[in-house]
Amino acid sequence: MNKPTVGVIGMAVMGKNLALNIESRGYTVAIYNRTGSKTQQVVEDHPDKKLVPSFSVEDFVDSLEKPRRIVMMVKAGKPTDAVIDELLPLLDQGDVLIDGGNTFFEDTIARNERLDKSGINFIGMGVSGGELGALKGPSLMPGGQKEAYDLVEPVLQQIAAKTDDDQPCVTYIGPNGAGHYVKMVHNGIEYGDMQLIAESYSLMKDLGHLSTDQIAVTFKDWNQGELSSYLIEITADILTRKDDLGSNQPIVDLILDAAGNKGTGKWSSQSALELGVPQSLITEAVYARYISTFKDERVKASERLPQSQLNVQIPADFTEKVREALYFSKVMSYAQGFAQLKAASQHYDWNLQYGEIANIWREGCIIRAQFLQKITAAYQKNADLNNLLLDDYFKEICAKYQDATRQVVAWAVQSGIPVPAFSAALAYYDSYRSAVLPANLIQAQRDYFGAHTYQRVDRSGIYHYPWYEEQ
Amino acid sequence: MNKPTVGVIGMAVMGKNLALNIESRGYTVAIYNRTGSKTQQVVEDHPDKKLVPSFSVEDFVDSLEKPRRIVMMVKAGKPTDAVIDELLPLLDQGDVLIDGGNTFFEDTIARNERLDKSGINFIGMGVSGGELGALKGPSLMPGGQKEAYDLVEPVLQQIAAKTDDDQPCVTYIGPNGAGHYVKMVHNGIEYGDMQLIAESYSLMKDLGHLSTDQIAVTFKDWNQGELSSYLIEITADILTRKDDLGSNQPIVDLILDAAGNKGTGKWSSQSALELGVPQSLITEAVYARYISTFKDERVKASERLPQSQLNVQIPADFTEKVREALYFSKVMSYAQGFAQLKAASQHYDWNLQYGEIANIWREGCIIRAQFLQKITAAYQKNADLNNLLLDDYFKEICAKYQDATRQVVAWAVQSGIPVPAFSAALAYYDSYRSAVLPANLIQAQRDYFGAHTYQRVDRSGIYHYPWYEEQ
Repeated sequence: MNKPTVGVIGMAVMGKNLALNIESRGYTVAIYNRTGSKTQQVVEDHPDKKLVPSFSVEDFVDSLEKPRRIVMMVKAGKPTDAVIDELLPLLDQGDVLIDGGNTFFEDTIARNERLDKSGINFIGMGVSGGELGALKGPSLMPGGQKEAYDLVEPVLQQIAAKTDDDQPCVTYIGPNGAGHYVKMVHNGIEYGDMQLIAESYSLMKDLGHLSTDQIAVTFKDWNQGELSSYLIEITADILTRKDDLGSNQPIVDLILDAAGNKGTGKWSSQSALELGVPQSLITEAVYARYISTFKDERVKASERLPQSQLNVQIPADFTEKVREALYFSKVMSYAQGFAQLKAASQHYDWNLQYGEIANIWREGCIIRAQFLQKITAAYQKNADLNNLLLDDYFKEICAKYQDATRQVVAWAVQSGIPVPAFSAALAYYDSYRSAVLPANLIQAQRDYFGAHTYQRVDRSGIYHYPWYEEQ
Repeated sequence: MNKPTVGVIGMAVMGKNLALNIESRGYTVAIYNRTGSKTQQVVEDHPDKKLVPSFSVEDFVDSLEKPRRIVMMVKAGKPTDAVIDELLPLLDQGDVLIDGGNTFFEDTIARNERLDKSGINFIGMGVSGGELGALKGPSLMPGGQKEAYDLVEPVLQQIAAKTDDDQPCVTYIGPNGAGHYVKMVHNGIEYGDMQLIAESYSLMKDLGHLSTDQIAVTFKDWNQGELSSYLIEITADILTRKDDLGSNQPIVDLILDAAGNKGTGKWSSQSALELGVPQSLITEAVYARYISTFKDERVKASERLPQSQLNVQIPADFTEKVREALYFSKVMSYAQGFAQLKAASQHYDWNLQYGEIANIWREGCIIRAQFLQKITAAYQKNADLNNLLLDDYFKEICAKYQDATRQVVAWAVQSGIPVPAFSAALAYYDSYRSAVLPANLIQAQRDYFGAHTYQRVDRSGIYHYPWYEEQ
């Protein structure tokens, strides 16, 4: 065997699968795990693979071809710092250390700066696609020194997912924390997509009174059209599955309605709040997960708080209206997400390439979808586009589907079905296309009680009204 | 003159007014400002007041009665740290330093801990009521060492606003950052209240086609009833005011619809996200301010993006429906805000007294309102109440006004008027009272692509479905 070209630290499922993916492209891969028995197990489970196990960090580092290319697949936070601290004295200038964990981008910025001082290249790389993606081809979002990216690009291009026109789902995202930031927004968008699907499911179930089987067929049908995407596809699949513990019921009906989260959606919302950009849809999706976890409280509240007394009539083509509302709302979510990327790129000086980002999300990752080509196309036409809604294709979607969305939200609110994400989508659309918002009143109030001043519509300058003087 | 009992650092308008307020209760007050000319100006403007100016920190500290009581009214952040660093070597054990700025609560926690090591008491105190409040009686939210609070309580009780039954609007909030946290949530609620008023105004103007004068009368009328509050009162006043630069137009029509913010609403949302509690209404209010600042982009978008083609009929009692929707939504906002306080109290171990907090907001502060008595009453009946909506009074409001809210939101979304906060209120209500939410599907998706496992509704334990095995 050759000296390993790449080393992977962390033999939990993501690290193991990424190592096997790299190995499958013809590379010899060094592997290491803090608990050596895990490393041993991987080698025993895959005796015919070109895996070189090490049982100390020193041996692991020594085993690698120079400049070293090391991928860390360990828990974000302190465990990542612990590994970096162990590695740092052993590395040489020009080595490339990649953090493939779900790391908060500000930590990546700090680590990149710290390691750069020792001449070590540090790449924070978003890896999306779950366990299967890691094994067969993830979407990769690497950020760090460009010269470091160039050193690992050949490997990353080989292990990444490929689009239908055979483009690898990896590109250089930008300096320091750019890769982990883009991954964070990817995950936020994933929260939004999942919430929109859940609201559509709820509308069809609780207002359309469709059976789980009928809803499965509907999603399968939707997956043939413009909504075609991994999440719609697995939703259709999930809804067909029966209880694995023996009852003949759909498994989805037996799963507790309490959705967990790993924090990336939350970070994404917190960053939007910090940057001053509206990201209401993803934030509502995060809050929807939070409220879902208060199951006992909700059950109690359901017995006390009255439901709607209004009468709602839905039309024969209700399901099609829901589909249109879903697509419209998805467009709003991506418009917010990409506007957030633009704000972040300006704030952190990352020079993000929005079209390329949409492109590498086309395969491998959880939000993979046909529709992302439309985003790439929009930025190819205008790289400085302020908002996706201003692009012709997305404008057309707005024009075609806005009224269906209005109807669906109106039916939902009148019948008492919570649709926080659909509602946020519509409020965003209507706010964004409002030449005049009632914020003049808010600014007047701020000037009234806090002397915060205001601008005028008829002349430039800063004004304060004499609210407390006798009239 | 006696030795000053209290010292105030920072002679910008808030500090000056607070010093004058304290002086007006019979105290001699030491004053200091980094730029001495400001201190001099205050003394010259108020020659008959018991103000003792100092032009060095040393003189200022020496001038005070012991244990010293010093209120800092300086900019949050680095300026606050700079003042603390100057003071620290000059103070004695047992002195009380109060930060009355709009400080981020985590900074207050850190400073409290740091100063406590030197035996200096540190109180982070929220001060609400703007310039006039500071002068005549603010609502005060002090957090820090209880024994330090006891040392300053007499002064604070005298300078605070009084309720109609003569209770001072100040109470001991809790340890370290509790006071600034409660002030932050107060401000978040203020953002929510203001956005709800703005949406009501927009609905009456753009859908009800009322004139500014008619809307002013409506708010004045509302202020006589259960909505009675400072913000409704000043809204009615604002809407009657004419241009101070000569035209006869209402000033509100000449104010640019771009609302600024000072960050406390943002912090409040970021903390809710951190604590895992839904706070959708305030967050939408923050995002609404953000989107209002993109004026040029909105004007451009208004020319490109189509408006609703749906036909909306509003009833004769439309204005009353809006009033009911406003009160319903306000209840949702406070329910979220107090649930957030409860989560924070548990997380930071603050033992917050929710009923007392509502009580000290009844006067002096920006969100002062009759309605807060109902919150105090709810917590008097049940100090452990999980959510205000479970209290009888608030349950009744929900029952009475939910359908009006549903109708108002339905009219708004169908006519294209953005109502992000009304929508968020309704989505929260319907989510909270849903025994079953579609989060089962979200958790199934998470288990499908990330093996995140799930719970079942029919038995305890943690499960993972064999999604990838042949069926």
